[in-house]
Amino acid sequence: MRTVTPPGDPGAETTGGYLKGRIRRKDIIAAARAVYAEAGYHGSSLREIAKRAGITHAGLLYYFPTKEALLAAVLQRRDAEDAARQHLDSSPGLDVLKSLIALAAHNVRHPGIVDLYVRLAAEAVGPDHPAHTYFERHYREARELTARSFRVLAARGDLRPGVDPELAALGFIALMDGLQVQWLTMPDEVDLVGALEAHLQSLLTVPL
Amino acid sequence: MRTVTPPGDPGAETTGGYLKGRIRRKDIIAAARAVYAEAGYHGSSLREIAKRAGITHAGLLYYFPTKEALLAAVLQRRDAEDAARQHLDSSPGLDVLKSLIALAAHNVRHPGIVDLYVRLAAEAVGPDHPAHTYFERHYREARELTARSFRVLAARGDLRPGVDPELAALGFIALMDGLQVQWLTMPDEVDLVGALEAHLQSLLTVPL
Repeated sequence: MRTVTPPGDPGAETTGGYLKGRIRRKDIIAAARAVYAEAGYHGSSLREIAKRAGITHAGLLYYFPTKEALLAAVLQRRDAEDAARQHLDSSPGLDVLKSLIALAAHNVRHPGIVDLYVRLAAEAVGPDHPAHTYFERHYREARELTARSFRVLAARGDLRPGVDPELAALGFIALMDGLQVQWLTMPDEVDLVGALEAHLQSLLTVPL
Repeated sequence: MRTVTPPGDPGAETTGGYLKGRIRRKDIIAAARAVYAEAGYHGSSLREIAKRAGITHAGLLYYFPTKEALLAAVLQRRDAEDAARQHLDSSPGLDVLKSLIALAAHNVRHPGIVDLYVRLAAEAVGPDHPAHTYFERHYREARELTARSFRVLAARGDLRPGVDPELAALGFIALMDGLQVQWLTMPDEVDLVGALEAHLQSLLTVPL
């Protein structure tokens, strides 16, 4: 079992200690993801996550003093990874919508992450859950990015007449979430990416 | 606290005993719904549900010998209530799709039921969950009913050209589910029924 090196350890060089800390954080976040996916956030314990990460309980508490702090780090890490991989920060428009579908295609190859997201989103609907604020912001940002993209398409005449960009954005994000639950439940019967593409195409006057 | 009357109790008339049993089952199912909604299915216990129903633990076990049996009864009760209220057994077509939207409108007035459904659906994605088979069947039946309805519309020329009835059905059910999660998380920002109507309208050549 590995043990954590406290900061200022006389044997650790500053840069090396910093790097080691980043690696430890990464290991702990990976272990937390695995444990959440198996037991749900509420069913998990920092003790179990520490064990999985090969670190002492006290060592984990040095990096993440509370269960909530670790959850926040797991969620932020996922969003940062998604944004970097799918270039979700590009200008609003068709490319952003295609990137969201590419994100869904990526997720289909990583069911563990989807499983974690779906379970946490359901646990966090109540305002007292520590991830509630995260999901509020997450949905809001996703809807706004998508609505801006639909408005850009509308201005170009590429959105079918009568389609409201705000409702279409709400629907697009909800469709992604709802498809994930059905796909996790019966992966062989649910064409997640196909359904998203068909839906987006039905809103456009131009081919996808 | 009420106590359960065992069957064959010398003081209980047969018909009265039967009626009492139905009322007890109903009370227990209502208590189970409340406890699941608060603690999730996995976080609940038959002991806690018995307490909430005002019945002894042994009394509850007489009606529902296992946690799984009670969960199955809760889910079947909900489906039976939905089907009876929304006439989901009518001939496939636009009326069925409108009934599904009416069901969503009903759900918006009963957030506790939606909360329970969303949490259980997320818990039950794995094949080892006792409600997994229920959700598989539930999704499959909902998709098939919806696909048949879209096919009827297509045959009449009421479905927009290029819309695939199977993918549209998968999307319609997924949209309902995904909207529920977002709506539970931020009820003031999500127009659940409006988004469903807008979506359905975008698939049709006729006004809804």
